[in-house]
Amino acid sequence: MNNKKKIYFTPGPTQLHPSVEKYIRHALDENVCSINHRSQEFMEIFGNTVCSLKKLMNIPEEFSVFFLSSATECMDRMIQNCVEKNSLHFVNGAFAERYFKTAVELNKNAEKIESAFGEGFDFSNLKTGSLPELVCITQNETSTGVALDLNDIYKIKKLFPETILSIDIVSSAPYVNPDFTIIDSAFFSVQKGFGLPAGLGVLIVNEKCISKARVMHSKKVAGSYHNFVSLYDNAQKKQTSETPNVLGIFLLGKICEELIHYGIKKIRSETEDKSKLIYDCLDKNSKLNAFVKSNELRSKTVIAVNTGDKQKIVKKMLLDEGLIVGSGYGKLKDSQIRIANFPMHKHEDISTITQILNNMKD
Amino acid sequence: MNNKKKIYFTPGPTQLHPSVEKYIRHALDENVCSINHRSQEFMEIFGNTVCSLKKLMNIPEEFSVFFLSSATECMDRMIQNCVEKNSLHFVNGAFAERYFKTAVELNKNAEKIESAFGEGFDFSNLKTGSLPELVCITQNETSTGVALDLNDIYKIKKLFPETILSIDIVSSAPYVNPDFTIIDSAFFSVQKGFGLPAGLGVLIVNEKCISKARVMHSKKVAGSYHNFVSLYDNAQKKQTSETPNVLGIFLLGKICEELIHYGIKKIRSETEDKSKLIYDCLDKNSKLNAFVKSNELRSKTVIAVNTGDKQKIVKKMLLDEGLIVGSGYGKLKDSQIRIANFPMHKHEDISTITQILNNMKD
Repeated sequence: MNNKKKIYFTPGPTQLHPSVEKYIRHALDENVCSINHRSQEFMEIFGNTVCSLKKLMNIPEEFSVFFLSSATECMDRMIQNCVEKNSLHFVNGAFAERYFKTAVELNKNAEKIESAFGEGFDFSNLKTGSLPELVCITQNETSTGVALDLNDIYKIKKLFPETILSIDIVSSAPYVNPDFTIIDSAFFSVQKGFGLPAGLGVLIVNEKCISKARVMHSKKVAGSYHNFVSLYDNAQKKQTSETPNVLGIFLLGKICEELIHYGIKKIRSETEDKSKLIYDCLDKNSKLNAFVKSNELRSKTVIAVNTGDKQKIVKKMLLDEGLIVGSGYGKLKDSQIRIANFPMHKHEDISTITQILNNMKD
Repeated sequence: MNNKKKIYFTPGPTQLHPSVEKYIRHALDENVCSINHRSQEFMEIFGNTVCSLKKLMNIPEEFSVFFLSSATECMDRMIQNCVEKNSLHFVNGAFAERYFKTAVELNKNAEKIESAFGEGFDFSNLKTGSLPELVCITQNETSTGVALDLNDIYKIKKLFPETILSIDIVSSAPYVNPDFTIIDSAFFSVQKGFGLPAGLGVLIVNEKCISKARVMHSKKVAGSYHNFVSLYDNAQKKQTSETPNVLGIFLLGKICEELIHYGIKKIRSETEDKSKLIYDCLDKNSKLNAFVKSNELRSKTVIAVNTGDKQKIVKKMLLDEGLIVGSGYGKLKDSQIRIANFPMHKHEDISTITQILNNMKD
């Protein structure tokens, strides 16, 4: 059965949105890859994508959208532009750790509050050292399948009202629905929930981040071409600092339009239904179980499954039906699988996955 | 005639290589955009692209190839990783100036030797201040159409044998044929001579650059995720520091293979023939003339043409035949056109351009 058409349930890169091919065709027909990035045509693409993304994710007009190359670059630029001295990181997985390490590598006084992989944090009882200029939270930890409750995250704003709050929504966007009047910044990459080719990171920042970056820039410590001042000044003209991934920006806009048309509420409710299918299956399974025990912390978009020594067997059973899931991350590489549940993943295919996982009982 | 199929002779983004569409089709069929960037499949793509690029451009095995997001990022990372204090820049155009400004923004002691736009340098008679750690030369200045002679550039190595020599070949690769046993680093972006969608910068560095970056890294001043130590360690595994533009890397490899098959010598001789067509036409033209006067300095791949107040008319005459050329750059925006002459640009179309330019005589 190995010649079945493959469907990728990997947590990113993942299955392309089914319309990507059509929009690449459009892009080629309309010479999107040949137009000048300072032309009116490009500025329209830039404007359309920003407009559609803001509409889809309910991002207020006053936020800026910067097109970088990856979520990893987003971390780098947030630290460079918003932290002169102190950052605070909530670390419960590999990507939260990467954000923390980025700050360390950039010579910041980075403090971390740690929690075991698979666990969350007690946000009502925080003890920290220095007052942080930036708080970094991985809302959806791709490495472990832990999603932090947004209402818990908002509590940080009460504790540090002046601090910039940055959330990593890399593998939860566009399902996640943060209140952008509370948070200051969020970022994601397009090869996960949007089902696009990798090579584009999207950073969303408010005026507070820009103001901080202006101070950093005036002190000549905000970095070079992707400092927020340059990104902001170009974004005001619907342009970028350098020749960007024009095709990626075009495709993101088209997919946002399509998701808006489909209905974001419908996408969110379908995502919840599909994730319930998987978690219910795991909770009844005697050989496999969800890595995240707390119902409140279970990600709806990345589901980590303890497979013990059965990982290879599980992956093979799924592959025989053309279904490709991710391995565990880091030290959990060989004892877990991770199943992505993004908008383009169909209920019927998730259902097939659960049937196969159910067969593990026998 | 405006419904003619457009052909882009812009200096980048430019006309896509005619095979790009076919290879995107391959990529979609082979799930290139869905595979994991730590998988064997990705490592094969990475390895193939590096191997083909090295073969095409005669790059020695010991050089590393890093996939960044743009040539602008390449400048940024070269400065961050190879300059603790002093860099020296030869500035005769907007992109050389950008390299210089990058060093200034990164707080380096950047020295520049300037020449008028459209002119070259006297490399045998240089006076500089501090001994530079990095010398930056824009071999082919996209903004003005000046190409510096490689043999002149090599003279710098005699003057500063210990210094890292970095050359910007953004709009001359793969036509340009630098001797990588003399230079230490070169970079280009793929949306010019390779005719690919923008969103990938390629940085080629030797062991000397890596060694310098190791010293910088140990002092914690080499930056974050795209420091050369991280890029190098990942490249050794045929991987990247973050999820990269996988499609871009795949396409670059395929186009390199195709150019190798076509023959790089043939491409180079065709490029010279086509550029001669244009310069000969300009030298006989009474209303238009080549911006670069010296034959030795005339770029074969980006030809800047003084149009005076006729720019709009010239562009319109070309557009009527579906031929799109670039405007001048910066202050020359409205009084020049720039014609790209890359491998995918056909002799017959260049010939049509010259016929139209000839008509300006009447």
